[in-house]
Order: sequence, then structure tokens, then C-alpha cells
Amino acid sequence: MTVFTLEELQQAARNHGMPLEALRYDVTPVGLHYLLIHFDIPAVDPESWRLEIGGKVARPLSLSLADLRARPSQEVTVTMECAGNGRARLEERPFSQPWLHEAVGTARWRGIPLLDVLDEADVGEGAREVVFTGFDRGLEGGEEQQFERSLTLDDARGDDVLLAYEINGQPLPPQHGFPLRLVVPGWYGMTNVKWLARITVVDEPFAGYQQRHAYRIKADDEDEGRPLNRIPPRALLIPPGTPEFPSRERTVPPGLCLLEGRAWSGFGPIAGVEVSTDGGESWHDADLDPPVSPWAWRGWRYRWEPSTPGAYELRCRARDDAGNVQPDEPAWNVGGYSNNAAQRVPVTVA
Amino acid sequence: MTVFTLEELQQAARNHGMPLEALRYDVTPVGLHYLLIHFDIPAVDPESWRLEIGGKVARPLSLSLADLRARPSQEVTVTMECAGNGRARLEERPFSQPWLHEAVGTARWRGIPLLDVLDEADVGEGAREVVFTGFDRGLEGGEEQQFERSLTLDDARGDDVLLAYEINGQPLPPQHGFPLRLVVPGWYGMTNVKWLARITVVDEPFAGYQQRHAYRIKADDEDEGRPLNRIPPRALLIPPGTPEFPSRERTVPPGLCLLEGRAWSGFGPIAGVEVSTDGGESWHDADLDPPVSPWAWRGWRYRWEPSTPGAYELRCRARDDAGNVQPDEPAWNVGGYSNNAAQRVPVTVA
Repeated sequence: MTVFTLEELQQAARNHGMPLEALRYDVTPVGLHYLLIHFDIPAVDPESWRLEIGGKVARPLSLSLADLRARPSQEVTVTMECAGNGRARLEERPFSQPWLHEAVGTARWRGIPLLDVLDEADVGEGAREVVFTGFDRGLEGGEEQQFERSLTLDDARGDDVLLAYEINGQPLPPQHGFPLRLVVPGWYGMTNVKWLARITVVDEPFAGYQQRHAYRIKADDEDEGRPLNRIPPRALLIPPGTPEFPSRERTVPPGLCLLEGRAWSGFGPIAGVEVSTDGGESWHDADLDPPVSPWAWRGWRYRWEPSTPGAYELRCRARDDAGNVQPDEPAWNVGGYSNNAAQRVPVTVA
Repeated sequence: MTVFTLEELQQAARNHGMPLEALRYDVTPVGLHYLLIHFDIPAVDPESWRLEIGGKVARPLSLSLADLRARPSQEVTVTMECAGNGRARLEERPFSQPWLHEAVGTARWRGIPLLDVLDEADVGEGAREVVFTGFDRGLEGGEEQQFERSLTLDDARGDDVLLAYEINGQPLPPQHGFPLRLVVPGWYGMTNVKWLARITVVDEPFAGYQQRHAYRIKADDEDEGRPLNRIPPRALLIPPGTPEFPSRERTVPPGLCLLEGRAWSGFGPIAGVEVSTDGGESWHDADLDPPVSPWAWRGWRYRWEPSTPGAYELRCRARDDAGNVQPDEPAWNVGGYSNNAAQRVPVTVA
């Protein structure tokens, strides 16, 4: 039997997933969007806060929240997912946040294009990467640190990369990075640094803990690994029927049952979603809804009409235009990242 | 070693607690307030929705959201806690939502006094209880059900009992009971029925599952038990220092360390909070902040000045004006309810 430790439960009590019935919303209501916070939620005073932009720039900047809000802004609807989503479904899983399937959410982020700020700061010759430093701090892997991640200069200048101060039309709540966070559409959550303190342009690859050690696909502890970046495809379905408390076992009445869900990929548009209602023996194409944003999940539906009572296992899997396909089985790696194996939902028709 | 099952983890991934650093806020931001949802979050169409008030009343009512919003409203700041808070700290814990300490939050709820609606419906002679039925449905204890709880007529007519449509100045989000929920200040969360469908005045004690079987303190399975209602006192402290990810072990530098937290009771005002920094050997009075609402938690603080590096266990405990005192050790019961044993926070001074 799979069991979890008290330390894993402590993480799960803090870092909640999105209950899967919330897949019904195009935009996830605040409070249902997934959250992963390595350390504590920092308290940031918006009055004294400044975003410092420095390093290899001709014109360092120090911007208040009012400065940022006075600039031309842009709103982007983005599906964000934790790189550790699916970790708790691995055998011999590593000790970290024990996500099942639910570490996802879609939000309308409003902010100013990062490109505009980099242009204003006038990035110098030889600049290679941009480092984003959050106020959240603690110990990880034996290193005291503030949470920090970098992007290459090209990625930082990408379309729709924002310094966001609003979610779903509201100021960021503390848990989503108040007063300002990075939003990089299509990339796993760790890229989207919250509680931004400073942005530093550097002329060599950033070697901070969250870049050099964490968030890499490693075959074993000696493997240097390859960095995680964009989100591979995943489809999730809204578990149909009614649940039992507390087991969450589900019962579906015989007859027509509309299976609905969402699918997304950070590599390109969703090209198709397939559904199996017999545990992967046979697969059927789902109908796709029109896309709502280039960076947001896409709705899908499949009419299932079970006539025989009994136990069924529903599955769904997505593929994207870039040729990525969700696997049926997890692929293990040291950090337990990027397990996008097809969701399995056992139900009883009765 | 304490271990948890996959089914417990599934619950924890859905029903999140309040990260304890959020004790810093007088009013808990939406998304940090604890959530306990037995079944699925229902989708309620606010256009067609009506609150039906019937049973032993002279004048049954059917009220739209606009009808409710047009009435005189009231806002109350309330600390709400799950009756299962602390369950996961019990030995031989029952299978349910595995809360550690964090199933709490404080919100500003706006709505109309329940008393006004009951008066308008004209409660009849012989009426004894008021039953509140939510739209959330599923299977529990072998019974198909919508979530339902009752109050005695006296309790239903109590001060500040609201039919609430706003939290923290915003319409209720889906997970907090949109479009309307009951708020009964001072009572455990299960009383505060979400997604209200109807209110039924009855002339005999309500015997629904959540009243007759669940939410009762039972010594064993044969015990009929006593019903849970008001929240006994609890103090929680903001774990000081910085955390390690993912263990959440905490390190505090030597020198002055201000220990801060909140304390609450549904039985009466908080009369005192005590802090121990030596694992319960000695206890010291904390300073209390002024109360912010008769129904909300009260801030407290204690100056700790550890000079010797090493391992410490911090504890805190509250007492209320009604004479209730937090115990140092959990009291076991079948459902794992109401474990308000004093919080223990291990830290390393280094």
C-alpha cells in the first residue's frame, strides 16, 4: 500500500491543488488555483517596496508599484502547472510536495511586458541571462537562499512575458506573489517567480540552487540533468458522478454521461484529446472546444454511455501540435518531475 | 512512524488549511482561509437559483439573489474552524480529512440576518428546529445525501447569524458556498452550510446523517455521542525563523524572537494565552491585542530571547472567559473531532 509521511502531509496541507471539478471554469477562481510555495509566504509592504532592475544594464531602475501600474499593461490568460504535478503517482517517489494530478490552474494575469522594462534599462553587450529574485527565503539542499530562477535573454524577451500585479482583475493576493510576480506563459510554475525583489541581468549562466540542482530531469544523483522549462501536454477530466466522503470513490448512473475536461501544453496548441473508458484497451477522440487563449487550456468533451453496471477505469490523454504525446505510464526521475502519464479515474456504474 | 494513506492525501490535496504564517492577517485573504468540502463543489446558476424557505412557516418564501441583496445587510468578522482540526495529530486517527493544525481562517462575511427571514416567513407554533440544505451531494456512511445540518430555533435566531453572500467584500467564490451560505459565529465549520438550496422549519429534531452520525463526540462506535457545536479555545503561533524545504524544519537565530499568533474561542472572549519555550516545563503569559470582533481571533505576542543554540519546543495554549482551557494532550474520540491540544512547534536555535 502506498503511504505518505507526516512531512509530505504538511506540504499537502499548505500547497493545495485545484479540485478537479474546478476544470469546469475557463478561468480558475482565486483560491482554487494550485499553489506551491517552497518557503513561507513573505510579508511585503507595498509602500516601501521597489522592484530593483540592475546588473549588466546601462540604466538601473528602481520602480514602485505606482510606477508599474502607470505603465501600459497587458492581460494574458495562462494555464500554469507545477513541474512536480504527478509526483505522488510515482513508485519510489522522492520526498517533496506530493502532488497527485491537481497542481494546475488558469488565471488572467495583468501586468507590464518584461520586454519594455528590459528595453528601458538598456541591456548591455554580453548580457546572457536575466535572474529573478523573490522575497521568499529558506533552506533547501543545505543552501540558505531566496527563491531565484533565470531565463535566457531570448526567453525573457519572449511574447507575453509579464511582470504581473493582478490576477483575475484583482491585486495579487499574498499567496500568488503580492505585489509583483513573473509570468512566463507555457512554462512550468517554478519559472514564474513570486514576490519579486529584483531582476538582475548577468553575463554568465545563473548557477543558483533552483536552476543548478532543482527542477532538472536527472536519471540518478550523479546526473547533471537537463533543465525543465515548458509544460508538456496533459489532459484532465472532471471525475463524473458523485463522490463518497472521505474515500472520493465515485458512482455514475447508467446512461449518457458527458465526460468533460481540459487539456494544455506549453509547447503548442492542443492537437487532440483521446478518452478511454475501458482502462486503456480502446481510445476515442474527444471533441475540442475552440481555444480561449494561446496560453490557456482547451476544453474537450466525450459522450460516454455505459449500459452495463460495474467498475470502469476512465483515462484521457492529450497531444500537441509540436508532436508531444502524453504517455500512458510515468517516467521516473530523481526529482519526480514532469510525470504527465495519462490520468486514471476509477468509477462504478450503478 | 506516522504514515498516511493515498485517500487521506487526496483529501489533503483538495481541502487545504491556512498556512500558519497567514496568522499575520487580521482577516484571512481568500485562498488562504481553510476549506473543507465533503463532496464536490457544486455549480450553481445564480440566475435561476432561489432560496426556498418552507416547512412550519405561515408564509413560505422563494428569494432570488437580487431579492437578498436588496435587503438590509450586516457584516460580521468571524473566525471559523473545522471540527476535525487536529485529527491527524491523534494516534489511531479515524479515516477522514487529515488536518494538522491549520483548518482555520477569519473572514468578513456580509449577508442578511437569518432572524429577519425567519420573521418574514412567520415561523409557526410547535416549530423546533431549522434545517439548512446545501446543493453539495454525495455518499457518506452508506447514505446518499445533500449536506444538511440543523439549528434549534433559539440558535437560529441568535445574534449575528447570517445568510452570507459576500466574503471580504467580494461575492462568495464557488468554494465558499456561492451564491449563499449560512454563517453561525462561534460554531464549528460544519454548521455553516454552503451552497444553500433551502431552509426548512421542522417540529421535531432533525435526524440527517451529518447531525445524527457525524460531528458527534463518541467514545466508541456504540456511543450515541454528544453533538459538536461551539469552538473550544485554541491558540496558534506563527512558526518563527526560516523553514527548510520540503521538511518545514525551522531555524531561529539567537537573540530576540517575537512569537506572535492568534487565539479564539466560540464560547466567549479569550481570557489569556500562555507560551512555553521549553516543551511545556514552564509557561509564560503572552500579551493580548485588543479584540477586533466578538467573533474573531485575538492577536497575542511574547518576547522570547533564546541565548543558547540547540533544539527547542515551543507551545501555546489559550483559555476563554467561559472557563475553557486548552489541554496539553489530545483527547481521543471516534470521529477525531475537536482535538485542541496545545500546538507544538519544534525549532532549532542556530
